[in-house]
Amino acid sequence: MLLKPKGKKPSRRQFLTAAAAAPVAAVAGRVAAQETPDPAIVEKQPWNQFLGPGVDEAPYGMPSKFEAHVRRQNVPWLTADPVSSINFTPLHELDGIITPNGLCFERHHAGVAEVDPSQHRLMINGLVDKPLVFTMEDLMRFPRENHVYFLECAANTGMEWAGSQLNGCQFTHGMIHNVMYTGVPLRLLLEEAGVKTSGKWLLPEGADASGMTRSIPIEKAMDDCLVAFKMNGEALRAEQGYPVRLVVPGWEGNMWVKWLRRIEVGDKPWHHREETSKYTDLLANGQARRFTWEMDAKSVITSPSPQMPIKHGPGRVVVTGVAWSGRGTIPRVDVTTDGGMNWHQARMSGPSLDKSMHRFYYDFEWDGKPLLLQSRAHDSTGYVQPTKEQLRTVRGDNSIYHNNGIQTWAVNEQGVAENVEIS
Amino acid sequence: MLLKPKGKKPSRRQFLTAAAAAPVAAVAGRVAAQETPDPAIVEKQPWNQFLGPGVDEAPYGMPSKFEAHVRRQNVPWLTADPVSSINFTPLHELDGIITPNGLCFERHHAGVAEVDPSQHRLMINGLVDKPLVFTMEDLMRFPRENHVYFLECAANTGMEWAGSQLNGCQFTHGMIHNVMYTGVPLRLLLEEAGVKTSGKWLLPEGADASGMTRSIPIEKAMDDCLVAFKMNGEALRAEQGYPVRLVVPGWEGNMWVKWLRRIEVGDKPWHHREETSKYTDLLANGQARRFTWEMDAKSVITSPSPQMPIKHGPGRVVVTGVAWSGRGTIPRVDVTTDGGMNWHQARMSGPSLDKSMHRFYYDFEWDGKPLLLQSRAHDSTGYVQPTKEQLRTVRGDNSIYHNNGIQTWAVNEQGVAENVEIS
Repeated sequence: MLLKPKGKKPSRRQFLTAAAAAPVAAVAGRVAAQETPDPAIVEKQPWNQFLGPGVDEAPYGMPSKFEAHVRRQNVPWLTADPVSSINFTPLHELDGIITPNGLCFERHHAGVAEVDPSQHRLMINGLVDKPLVFTMEDLMRFPRENHVYFLECAANTGMEWAGSQLNGCQFTHGMIHNVMYTGVPLRLLLEEAGVKTSGKWLLPEGADASGMTRSIPIEKAMDDCLVAFKMNGEALRAEQGYPVRLVVPGWEGNMWVKWLRRIEVGDKPWHHREETSKYTDLLANGQARRFTWEMDAKSVITSPSPQMPIKHGPGRVVVTGVAWSGRGTIPRVDVTTDGGMNWHQARMSGPSLDKSMHRFYYDFEWDGKPLLLQSRAHDSTGYVQPTKEQLRTVRGDNSIYHNNGIQTWAVNEQGVAENVEIS
Repeated sequence: MLLKPKGKKPSRRQFLTAAAAAPVAAVAGRVAAQETPDPAIVEKQPWNQFLGPGVDEAPYGMPSKFEAHVRRQNVPWLTADPVSSINFTPLHELDGIITPNGLCFERHHAGVAEVDPSQHRLMINGLVDKPLVFTMEDLMRFPRENHVYFLECAANTGMEWAGSQLNGCQFTHGMIHNVMYTGVPLRLLLEEAGVKTSGKWLLPEGADASGMTRSIPIEKAMDDCLVAFKMNGEALRAEQGYPVRLVVPGWEGNMWVKWLRRIEVGDKPWHHREETSKYTDLLANGQARRFTWEMDAKSVITSPSPQMPIKHGPGRVVVTGVAWSGRGTIPRVDVTTDGGMNWHQARMSGPSLDKSMHRFYYDFEWDGKPLLLQSRAHDSTGYVQPTKEQLRTVRGDNSIYHNNGIQTWAVNEQGVAENVEIS
């Protein structure tokens, strides 16, 4: 095994040398809870001595004060201006497959538009028989669907192209969230307007100051796109495009236009800024991959991870993470604790939904020796998540977007995890 | 059709006479959006004239300011003291099947305990080989599962036993929520402690000042109960039992003990207060039904409803609602617009999950005449949701709990809906 730490912290190299040499054996059956039970212990706790407050006076509830550390977190130096900034989903603190709306990452190109739904309009124009303008109330009169989909920014894990740069899955993989959307199939709105036979592409446009636009082929629009107004049951959040956004299942997040105000139908793509100078993949030969819309199968271990060290010493450890594919479901994830010498099939848990996050677990007995943790997703097309080196062989070293390579966490004897790269 | 308005408002009787006489015809294909499109309309909107704020400085996001009306709502006179009070989920404003954590109804018997997770303990004692005390960290080392389950208070819709009392599905049906739980199967913890062969019942106990206890048969505990610490991906909310609660899928909410601190194993039920003087069903003959744990199949139309009138006049209307069963899934819901003369099979949307809410839609063309809207759930056992009269025939007039009768909304020509009863 060749260790290739590209990270900025010099201490990692030293750490890794030790980690790579460590064999890991799994031993089953250790008991986690070993305290001598004292029946008085639950009686002595202070919270059963007094009456707590009644029903929350706040009409909208918030997390416990003991969970203040579970938060979206930004990295100010990643973007030039706060209005075009990013914050990250705290994946390491989450479980299951639903991202709570208050913790969904944000990415804006001109800040958050505060749109009054009573004044908002959605126009469909261009190569249609009958241009239409919809109020929000109009949209609520079309048949609705409900689907859980992941939304991943194309730049998620982008910093890792140059080697392990950021510590913690919140920062390496946190530009993703997974919620249930309620919306109207875009197909129904297009059918209402009547797309001309020459209409082959769509240009959705956002109502914020960036006027975000992307070209989308008509086949995708007629297949599974939604004009969505709810996420996880309630109205979209302002930072997610309130009152209405486009949902483009499995495709890069930039195309899911927020504050959707217009959809133009045309006969060819528009080649706007966000699909030429941005959101394209410059290869080693100087040519750029374009229209790389689909997000390939990917996974990451969320715990243990740099923000979630093993604190309890050797014994039972729950390894868990998430996997997703823009091309279908995730029937299988493999986990290794020794940097890929041995792979174990993880246990999938919870519903397996198309183009959604899937939760996996690998429960094992830790002997206290260093670990090299990795996960590897298989999607329903048969595709297997590649290593970062395999990606670089094909794409070169210029890329920003679409890094779905296998992530490695090195765990030392104290249970502390770091972002490293091995090959 | 016999109209039997039992509600407090005398105006209802008059209204219903008109409503009952109105035949409703469905006509397909009307266009919802009828404005003449003006391309300037989307350009004139103010939110694209300036840069909005960047990523939210609040680490935990909140709904748009335009959604302030979407809130949990209490009814102060329902309980004697605020610490034992209730608020209600705004079902009428929600769609899909996930209830956001901030909008999940609350019911407390001694207010909200603010439990420090680092100090909290869960004890298993009684008829076990080895009594155990678990810290939260201990629990996190056991294999976890993820499931979406509804939690319904046994008293949900309880006011309706005496006829239509409260207006709006938030109040008639809002003591329910539906979230994805992450937790450890209770079976695994019991196996760790080793249940003696004489151990047939469990007594879970809460850490709040009410010390909530309920008797649960061992078969249910070994089947699908969870010791849960997350809901919709993040930590349980304080008002939902943070840091750990019992999940008893499909059974009445009172048994889902919050702030779970102890589980005693015994050989018979304990007959505590909450399963004798409360949460039992007094029949007409003076005998009480007991241990009526399972929540039978039920449904309600959430829109149109008293809080969600039809504002747009005749034409396309989306009728939507939720259905659930403590005994399985909901393969089918029927909707009537004429008080049961004609039933139409609704369209189910989104994942169909065991002991979870299901979303249904009935898209129809409204001719502007009065409606009597009802929904009727069928569950996977073949059970069909009964009328309120059918329930009263069996249970008499003394009941508080387990009212799963068909709900009726009368909609007038102006689109205003009211809670009424017909038979």
